[in-house]
Amino acid sequence: MAESELVETITREVMRRLSAEPKRVFTPAEIAPYIDHTLLKPEATDGQLAKLCEEAVAYGFFSVCVNSGRVACCARALQGSAVKVASVVGFPLGAMSARAKNLEARHAIEDGAREIDMVMNIGAAKSGDWKLVESDIRSVSRACAGNVALKVILETALLSDEEKILACQVAKNAGADFVKTSTGFSTHGANVHDVALMRRTVGPRLGVKASGGIRSFEDAVAMIEAGATRLGTSAGVKIVTGGASEAAY
Amino acid sequence: MAESELVETITREVMRRLSAEPKRVFTPAEIAPYIDHTLLKPEATDGQLAKLCEEAVAYGFFSVCVNSGRVACCARALQGSAVKVASVVGFPLGAMSARAKNLEARHAIEDGAREIDMVMNIGAAKSGDWKLVESDIRSVSRACAGNVALKVILETALLSDEEKILACQVAKNAGADFVKTSTGFSTHGANVHDVALMRRTVGPRLGVKASGGIRSFEDAVAMIEAGATRLGTSAGVKIVTGGASEAAY
Repeated sequence: MAESELVETITREVMRRLSAEPKRVFTPAEIAPYIDHTLLKPEATDGQLAKLCEEAVAYGFFSVCVNSGRVACCARALQGSAVKVASVVGFPLGAMSARAKNLEARHAIEDGAREIDMVMNIGAAKSGDWKLVESDIRSVSRACAGNVALKVILETALLSDEEKILACQVAKNAGADFVKTSTGFSTHGANVHDVALMRRTVGPRLGVKASGGIRSFEDAVAMIEAGATRLGTSAGVKIVTGGASEAAY
Repeated sequence: MAESELVETITREVMRRLSAEPKRVFTPAEIAPYIDHTLLKPEATDGQLAKLCEEAVAYGFFSVCVNSGRVACCARALQGSAVKVASVVGFPLGAMSARAKNLEARHAIEDGAREIDMVMNIGAAKSGDWKLVESDIRSVSRACAGNVALKVILETALLSDEEKILACQVAKNAGADFVKTSTGFSTHGANVHDVALMRRTVGPRLGVKASGGIRSFEDAVAMIEAGATRLGTSAGVKIVTGGASEAAY
């Protein structure tokens, strides 16, 4: 390397390191307010849902994330607490009609949901019909009417990077408050590459929720460092207690 | 074996064989009217749905079975043919609210569905809340209003034999026209044991649909012999052509 080139390289590296924000160091308990405590498997019993709500209060999770048929009982269980109820909609395939998604969201909100995690129309995206993807999201966005947070699940496992970028832009245009990586029911969940790509695409203001396969404190921190502002996981208790105990769900 | 015991054993065996109905021998092409030609994966494109409809007409399948967001385009593609459109509802978790299932079914029927394949409330069943399982099915049954066939998916992979029997009885009471084994999205699909159990439980009049994992002509015949009157599969073309070709979906 020539002397001038060496100077340039070292200068750039020093500048880069000086300008980088200091890395925030998390304790496990500080992860709690990032977590949507999640139980979506169809065979979950009433008892397991009750336990989910109790844990969310005990550990200070942001919300419980459940299927729309479970919203009313969770809202009752969480009354008077700071923990919100998030309902999935069009879950997990995203392939139901826009009208049905709109009404599922409306009913969930009536039942007490304060956040809606909808799955976008993946088939329309794969067919290049981004107009339909957008109108489908707008349909649910109308149901949220500005006072319920709308998260749009892209199902990144099924998309190319180009499709992920387009999906983020369309979701942002259509009124989403968050873009979210995964349902947890496809071939893979969140990864650092996708979360960073989504964060770069939507800019600093929109939320990015990483979900699917987040099983440990290390996973959680990696997602937050990549740009996630919310985490969907069923391993929340293990993550915030730093425990080696297996997730209950 | 004592002589009298031997006589009894031989007599029983001869009686059993005489009373058995002669086994029907199927050719591959005769399976076609049993088949709901199925494409439910979320990333399916418009082009793949169009091909599904073309194949259903070409091979004489009973219906195409699709997500509710695809019903309108399939109904248009199949206009003037004998092939019906079946829409899944509350699919594949069965965990959305009863009201949302009712409305998803209504919209699918407005869009042209002539059969509804709903997933029952599995979580309610696992919690022993059979009243909720029944009212959930009745909610969709009302949407079908007697002129659209209602199939209730039990998701047998998640149920004990006792729960399968109760689910069949509840579905029958609540107005189902068919009980159906599986979504194809759980841990396993149809098997001979479950189909026979469901047939014995619902009696001869209700339909039994075997679905999930039916990949070959031999699978199809085994399900029909066990008591199935309808088959849900994405391998229909392979089954009816007797071909070794892989399923397209």
